[in-house]
Amino acid sequence: MTVHIGVVGAGDVLDGSPEADAAEAVGRGLAEAGAVVVCGGLGGVMAAACRGAAAAGGTTVGLLPGSARTDANPWVSVALPTGLGEARNALVVRAVDVLVAVGGGYGTLSEIGLALRTGTPVVGVGTWELARGGQPDTGIERVATAGDAVRRALELAGGDA
Amino acid sequence: MTVHIGVVGAGDVLDGSPEADAAEAVGRGLAEAGAVVVCGGLGGVMAAACRGAAAAGGTTVGLLPGSARTDANPWVSVALPTGLGEARNALVVRAVDVLVAVGGGYGTLSEIGLALRTGTPVVGVGTWELARGGQPDTGIERVATAGDAVRRALELAGGDA
Amino acid sequence: MTVHIGVVGAGDVLDGSPEADAAEAVGRGLAEAGAVVVCGGLGGVMAAACRGAAAAGGTTVGLLPGSARTDANPWVSVALPTGLGEARNALVVRAVDVLVAVGGGYGTLSEIGLALRTGTPVVGVGTWELARGGQPDTGIERVATAGDAVRRALELAGGDA
Amino acid sequence: MTVHIGVVGAGDVLDGSPEADAAEAVGRGLAEAGAVVVCGGLGGVMAAACRGAAAAGGTTVGLLPGSARTDANPWVSVALPTGLGEARNALVVRAVDVLVAVGGGYGTLSEIGLALRTGTPVVGVGTWELARGGQPDTGIERVATAGDAVRRALELAGGDA
Repeated sequence: MTVHIGVVGAGDVLDGSPEADAAEAVGRGLAEAGAVVVCGGLGGVMAAACRGAAAAGGTTVGLLPGSARTDANPWVSVALPTGLGEARNALVVRAVDVLVAVGGGYGTLSEIGLALRTGTPVVGVGTWELARGGQPDTGIERVATAGDAVRRALELAGGDA
Repeated sequence: MTVHIGVVGAGDVLDGSPEADAAEAVGRGLAEAGAVVVCGGLGGVMAAACRGAAAAGGTTVGLLPGSARTDANPWVSVALPTGLGEARNALVVRAVDVLVAVGGGYGTLSEIGLALRTGTPVVGVGTWELARGGQPDTGIERVATAGDAVRRALELAGGDA
Repeated sequence: MTVHIGVVGAGDVLDGSPEADAAEAVGRGLAEAGAVVVCGGLGGVMAAACRGAAAAGGTTVGLLPGSARTDANPWVSVALPTGLGEARNALVVRAVDVLVAVGGGYGTLSEIGLALRTGTPVVGVGTWELARGGQPDTGIERVATAGDAVRRALELAGGDA
Repeated sequence: MTVHIGVVGAGDVLDGSPEADAAEAVGRGLAEAGAVVVCGGLGGVMAAACRGAAAAGGTTVGLLPGSARTDANPWVSVALPTGLGEARNALVVRAVDVLVAVGGGYGTLSEIGLALRTGTPVVGVGTWELARGGQPDTGIERVATAGDAVRRALELAGGDA
């Protein structure tokens, strides 16, 4: 069974930013290992992850919030409009075996919450830091580099990707 | 932009039945034309359509009602668990440019209704006959054969698939 | 447990039309029996059903397709924006014990299909006539009047509403 | 237009715990002001908030993850099964004008993220502490007591509840 890994992060980071570079490297590494990359299909971290995966010949799935397939970034190979708005975040989480969060805004935060709630492992690179009552939460497995994120995500997916 | 066409029908038709044969031929014809085949990912008509598309080297997307990727039939190339139950029917409809209904039960009926409601063309092979006040409804474009369904679906999709 | 009954139909029927009159009578009758009326929250049949229920002091729930509570008709007592577009039809069906279809367009057809697929009884007044292979489908329990629809819906709900 | 306010938090806190007491006081205060209380309909914080609101004669809406109305806690006045699983969290957020988070687990975190993403104000009592790059995020408006949460939520809702 092919491993499916989500890459999530802000839609408005610029090309060449550290977040975009990390996302692109994550996408490339996952695709080189044979994993399908699933994301929200739009720009920023999503586009960078798809660009990296596409460069490695990988399959990229974009679960779009709107109703137009043309909203997808050009590196999405399977672009699926959902018309659900931000509720599509739940679909990204359900569709994957492991979630990799690269930086990220509030939408990413919702995906992290849904993943941890439903038992999908989350690997984070420079993403949200969570605490309750002053105690750090250890739900997100934090790594330092894109390469570490790829390795750890593949291990957690436990597949033969 | 790649054309995406949905193939919907009952999940419990048997291999070798006329419905399964038609669905397999539809899937094959669509894939030969380069269209991505989108379906609910399970058995019966869905499996037959995917089998046909896979035989032609096509891409098949399965939007699964449950939360397990392993629910997908073996010819689904991109299997996406949604966890939405029958509400995932709306996603199949939104993800496609044209819907082809082959036979079908009540779930198929819901997909036909959603597609016609949102302006997605529906091509039907041996599917539901609809009327209001004794007047047949002409929303479904009815064709006689799988080959006709493929031709008409591609025309309606208006793409370069 | 309070009985919840859905009333579905076209959003564009005019006040004073036979469909609107029937929907209003259905809403009133259900509310008089203590049932909660659930609908899509907009105009036409939905507004008529809510107006009837409100006149009898009943509770009316509107599951709106958009994101603005102000889209609800004025007789909705609990207006819930969903932002799901037509996918909210699945929520109307899931939220109810029995579905009453009054006339109706393609959206109504999708709700009938989803209800029959998931085992929710459907009572129809002047609604879709369904057939397969020339054989009428008997899934919808057809009744002649609004009064019959109310009686039969309450029986099927089997509650103490 | 009646104000609708969400109260979210963990489903497994015990009656008599500080979180349950706070949620009950929030629900009561909101209902006394005429606001409709919307929640996920289950136990813990959800049940406590509904219990408080019901004691003040308020309306409580429970958007349930499963398909059975009987899953609702006994203080839900409008219990709506969605069958969407955790994806129903998006519906809780969309249905409300302001979200109050009382403590909370990962599901609550997802609701906070969705609310902040879509511009719905979030008032927090003893809930998640968020940071990025060591910098605290100020999206959640943190208050010290249930009474403060009620006052601030009503102000943010800006209605005449």
